[in-house]
Amino acid sequence: MISRAHDPAERGFASDNHAGVHPEVLTALAVANEGHQPSYGADVYTARMQEVFRRHFGEQAQAYPVFNGTGANVVALQAMTDRWSAVICADGSHIHTDECGAPERVAGLKLLPVPAPDGKLTPELIDRQAWGWGDEHRAQPKVVSLTQATELGTCYTAEEIAQICAHAHARGMAVHMDGARLANAAASLGVPLRALTTDAGVDVLSFGGTKNGLLAGEAIVVLNPEAVRGMVFLRKAAMQLASKMRFISAQFLALLEGDLWLRNAAHANAMARRLAAAAGRVPGVRIVRPVQANAVFAVIPKDVAERLRKRFFFYTWDERTGEVRWMCSFDTTEQDVDAFAAALAEEMSAR
Amino acid sequence: MISRAHDPAERGFASDNHAGVHPEVLTALAVANEGHQPSYGADVYTARMQEVFRRHFGEQAQAYPVFNGTGANVVALQAMTDRWSAVICADGSHIHTDECGAPERVAGLKLLPVPAPDGKLTPELIDRQAWGWGDEHRAQPKVVSLTQATELGTCYTAEEIAQICAHAHARGMAVHMDGARLANAAASLGVPLRALTTDAGVDVLSFGGTKNGLLAGEAIVVLNPEAVRGMVFLRKAAMQLASKMRFISAQFLALLEGDLWLRNAAHANAMARRLAAAAGRVPGVRIVRPVQANAVFAVIPKDVAERLRKRFFFYTWDERTGEVRWMCSFDTTEQDVDAFAAALAEEMSAR
Amino acid sequence: MISRAHDPAERGFASDNHAGVHPEVLTALAVANEGHQPSYGADVYTARMQEVFRRHFGEQAQAYPVFNGTGANVVALQAMTDRWSAVICADGSHIHTDECGAPERVAGLKLLPVPAPDGKLTPELIDRQAWGWGDEHRAQPKVVSLTQATELGTCYTAEEIAQICAHAHARGMAVHMDGARLANAAASLGVPLRALTTDAGVDVLSFGGTKNGLLAGEAIVVLNPEAVRGMVFLRKAAMQLASKMRFISAQFLALLEGDLWLRNAAHANAMARRLAAAAGRVPGVRIVRPVQANAVFAVIPKDVAERLRKRFFFYTWDERTGEVRWMCSFDTTEQDVDAFAAALAEEMSAR
Amino acid sequence: MISRAHDPAERGFASDNHAGVHPEVLTALAVANEGHQPSYGADVYTARMQEVFRRHFGEQAQAYPVFNGTGANVVALQAMTDRWSAVICADGSHIHTDECGAPERVAGLKLLPVPAPDGKLTPELIDRQAWGWGDEHRAQPKVVSLTQATELGTCYTAEEIAQICAHAHARGMAVHMDGARLANAAASLGVPLRALTTDAGVDVLSFGGTKNGLLAGEAIVVLNPEAVRGMVFLRKAAMQLASKMRFISAQFLALLEGDLWLRNAAHANAMARRLAAAAGRVPGVRIVRPVQANAVFAVIPKDVAERLRKRFFFYTWDERTGEVRWMCSFDTTEQDVDAFAAALAEEMSAR
Repeated sequence: MISRAHDPAERGFASDNHAGVHPEVLTALAVANEGHQPSYGADVYTARMQEVFRRHFGEQAQAYPVFNGTGANVVALQAMTDRWSAVICADGSHIHTDECGAPERVAGLKLLPVPAPDGKLTPELIDRQAWGWGDEHRAQPKVVSLTQATELGTCYTAEEIAQICAHAHARGMAVHMDGARLANAAASLGVPLRALTTDAGVDVLSFGGTKNGLLAGEAIVVLNPEAVRGMVFLRKAAMQLASKMRFISAQFLALLEGDLWLRNAAHANAMARRLAAAAGRVPGVRIVRPVQANAVFAVIPKDVAERLRKRFFFYTWDERTGEVRWMCSFDTTEQDVDAFAAALAEEMSAR
Repeated sequence: MISRAHDPAERGFASDNHAGVHPEVLTALAVANEGHQPSYGADVYTARMQEVFRRHFGEQAQAYPVFNGTGANVVALQAMTDRWSAVICADGSHIHTDECGAPERVAGLKLLPVPAPDGKLTPELIDRQAWGWGDEHRAQPKVVSLTQATELGTCYTAEEIAQICAHAHARGMAVHMDGARLANAAASLGVPLRALTTDAGVDVLSFGGTKNGLLAGEAIVVLNPEAVRGMVFLRKAAMQLASKMRFISAQFLALLEGDLWLRNAAHANAMARRLAAAAGRVPGVRIVRPVQANAVFAVIPKDVAERLRKRFFFYTWDERTGEVRWMCSFDTTEQDVDAFAAALAEEMSAR
Repeated sequence: MISRAHDPAERGFASDNHAGVHPEVLTALAVANEGHQPSYGADVYTARMQEVFRRHFGEQAQAYPVFNGTGANVVALQAMTDRWSAVICADGSHIHTDECGAPERVAGLKLLPVPAPDGKLTPELIDRQAWGWGDEHRAQPKVVSLTQATELGTCYTAEEIAQICAHAHARGMAVHMDGARLANAAASLGVPLRALTTDAGVDVLSFGGTKNGLLAGEAIVVLNPEAVRGMVFLRKAAMQLASKMRFISAQFLALLEGDLWLRNAAHANAMARRLAAAAGRVPGVRIVRPVQANAVFAVIPKDVAERLRKRFFFYTWDERTGEVRWMCSFDTTEQDVDAFAAALAEEMSAR
Repeated sequence: MISRAHDPAERGFASDNHAGVHPEVLTALAVANEGHQPSYGADVYTARMQEVFRRHFGEQAQAYPVFNGTGANVVALQAMTDRWSAVICADGSHIHTDECGAPERVAGLKLLPVPAPDGKLTPELIDRQAWGWGDEHRAQPKVVSLTQATELGTCYTAEEIAQICAHAHARGMAVHMDGARLANAAASLGVPLRALTTDAGVDVLSFGGTKNGLLAGEAIVVLNPEAVRGMVFLRKAAMQLASKMRFISAQFLALLEGDLWLRNAAHANAMARRLAAAAGRVPGVRIVRPVQANAVFAVIPKDVAERLRKRFFFYTWDERTGEVRWMCSFDTTEQDVDAFAAALAEEMSAR
């Protein structure tokens, strides 16, 4: 029996993946355990998970559980593209900046990044790269990839997504959503998951679970089956097919059968708003982006960041400007937030 | 709270990944839970896991947890090769037959399969492809990849592995071991893990956990650090970097800190031997391969296989010959084996 | 003005690509020169070349000139496959043995080689790998790739090709022909090019020019337009799109508008037969394969090979057996052959 | 014998690859023809070509002839990078915009484009992406790729290149130059080729021949042998190894043994300057970029462009702004330029 090696009371604001597993998710693993179940998704929990995804995303939805977000994005984008296609994305998108080139290396994808200062694409921004179809010298734009909530803590409204989807579809392109934090966006906007996806015209979704209380698990949700080809083969060849898949599926059941997804996300969002409010009251601290999900971006003096970081870990987002990012998660408490805000005030006044 | 949807008493002989999670592993997940820990491997459980791997494999060993076996193999092989390299493997090896081309598609690897009727390479077999260095027209042999235990349930002895490693090294090649079932081989041969790996000269190991009682987890174990380059980048770009890595590492702690790895593997092996003995006594049933790990290969009439399969699921290995494969796992019981053997006898006598 | 640095009288038997350019091809380059023509294939010579290919291969044929044979093969196979497909080929095929892994590295293709002692696939050999459709763990067989004439100097008859095509098509696979020496095969069998391709059911052809008197030029000839997707994009992305394409097209015009292709190939074949006959009469020399194209394979003592090679260069094909390969080309003369045979006899008798 | 199908007097301003082959180059092909020469670069002309490249670029220079510019760039960048590397380039660079994603698809390269309004990178622009070394989530910047002359007809001075190289080297990066029009830059700046490459610190050069009067031929010139690995294998696996390489090498001999490279480039540059001067005098026509090589960029009314294009073909560079590009080549005559300028004036005054 292994012994505990960490302090379970310790919490920081570095990332929503520094949090652990929600207790209901851990229980679900035990429920799905024991006995034999067919591997690779032929088990009863995966079948039930399909039903649950259909309830959230519509009857045509097909879910393909995978291990992580990079895997979800790369498999989804492969399934949506030809070998000669290109993907239009924001220059700060995770697929362009944080996946060590996985889309290019694993899938041979050409990314066409466009500058998006608030993390959000628009039809106008998309059009900077949406051209040149039929010209053999140009990688052919085939997919627009959005992130919801964005890497900068902002959210697209349902209307904005619908507008982008209509724009893309009119040009023969499909729309992929990196929804690593889709639950946070839905909670923030007060709409069901499908309002921001299926109903808005999104074709394929990378639905995040890990950042919202799972141990490990993301799902590619095909909302428009005509937008993809070869899903099961691409998942396997991308090394994203879990053998004991019942345990990924059971996690999603715990998350989505009831309202755990919403409780977790809404809580994390609320903690971010509380933190932004408290930090914003500290003289000299500037909250520099709208707090629409579970992230707070602030500019604080570098020396304060250094000292504060030793008490509660977090990352500097932009070395040049001194912008830092504080993430809240499902298990962030009001006490955590208040203690952090107090420490921030203390360090600021100590200058 | 999700409800149980399966019968925990149900067990079959299809695969060791139809089994669930060993209770001690499930407990380890709970132990590692709660509070915040740095993601991507900077947590305390991953640090402890490194120590445990060093204890098993030597001071120079470096472990890189990943999600699954295909991921372990492909990342390991990439780290060991140049873009122009080739990998010599048995024609029945998992990397050639069961990974939907992941080595080629994800890593651009050239495989040079050689026929190995019992699943085992030899220096002579390796030499069929080990030539042509310096010739720009030929993919350059750089790695020999062995599977231990093999896909056919056989095991290399420590001496055989040492001989292959010496042979490969003398030709400037390194040796990779696909050890999805290394624990079964070590248990079967009655030797420590390092006897079949580090001490025999293996350079890089894919160490299997999932088939031996983990929920999901494999580890690339670099035994010879000079044989690899770029491990952390390649793992990330291959989409095999877990964000909440503490939960993969904790599983390995449960497996390797004590002797769970050995108990599980030895039990599965014993069940396979028991099954082979019982089935071998049934008139008309032929056990067609040595039972050196947890797999039994037998030839039975097709109609018997069809009927028997409905009672206890298993796979046909070779449609032409009627060869079937029966796998035992850590949770196979003597009752399971005896019931299966009785059912087999019953179906055979019913012809 | 550059000066001549080589002896134009020097000739060997190493390869048909040691020969130079047929004078009529060189003239064609001059004819197509001067003035401006649209690049990348929009010129008048490329348009004419399309007509000429249609005359040889049928009205539906579409030709895509590329630089070399590896390029033709890899672009053709990409256009015929999905990202999860596999290609069945002979274990001695050029794509498996002589392209430094280009199919895997550039295109992520999975090759499934089968042993073919005389270089020729058969329906039975194909079936060793033609299975497993729908199984996500297995790269999906989609294309059978033949070489005509084979790497061993043998030829498929039109009937054999038709049988293979019917077999492949019945299983949902398409057929690619590596026709680097198709002209030699057609000349040898006394049939038009289309008898061995279009009429036999081949879907896509790599048509060789360089080994038959061109400076540099191969063409992918799509015989069944439904068997390919994205040709122009794949050619460009595979770096096989010539900017001044008129000069590749003009070479093909020189080759195919009249009968130069046939004259060159028939001559090379005749020289090979002459050589085989003469060498076969030398005591101790064994011609070990049928001479059906422009290659002669013989077994001679190693010391003889070493001495003879200094007088006329050629390659050893198999170090173990002492088998050597002698290639004839469009510019091999009867005097060359007779001198070589005399030298061989001299070296043999000198032992 | 093929017949001439085009009007050799026809000339336009669309691209320097609409021109044909310089007569001295065509003669070189005939000189290198006849007799047998070893293939794949073991011939006497390739050996001589190496000497000539060393004369131009220094004793350490190694030239690797390939078929085209995309091939040169992709092979060079592969040889300079690891599988986890990234390449910093201008957002208008050919590798990012005009190669149908070849760097990503063939080589798995991650490109990090930065905005460069005049086509030229600077240390400041490079620094927008030159960071994050050691962070496994980020593709690791390893190469800076410059184009000289740029895609916008501008040239880096030797000092600018030296500054960029020093900047890159200080950060552990190497420098690649896409020199498709290096000869034009050298002619324009009045310096030898090595002043802009070897002497400035460039590590690897794609040296262009096709746009400067060759039939087809580019060369990767390794200036710093320590900056590359696996060149010969990567060239072959990228399908860029010519079998009858003597004919590519002979073209380079024609170009570089004497001063043909300089005569051709200087002439094309002079024609561009003449064109810019003449066009600039036409009321309503704006020359919008410095004319430092053989390209002229101008803004003219769309209807004028349409009508003028029918008389002399050229491309619109930017649909939004109406910017057009006029390229001059080695065979552009003063009469061509004057006739074009007259036609432009005529069309402008006809509005």
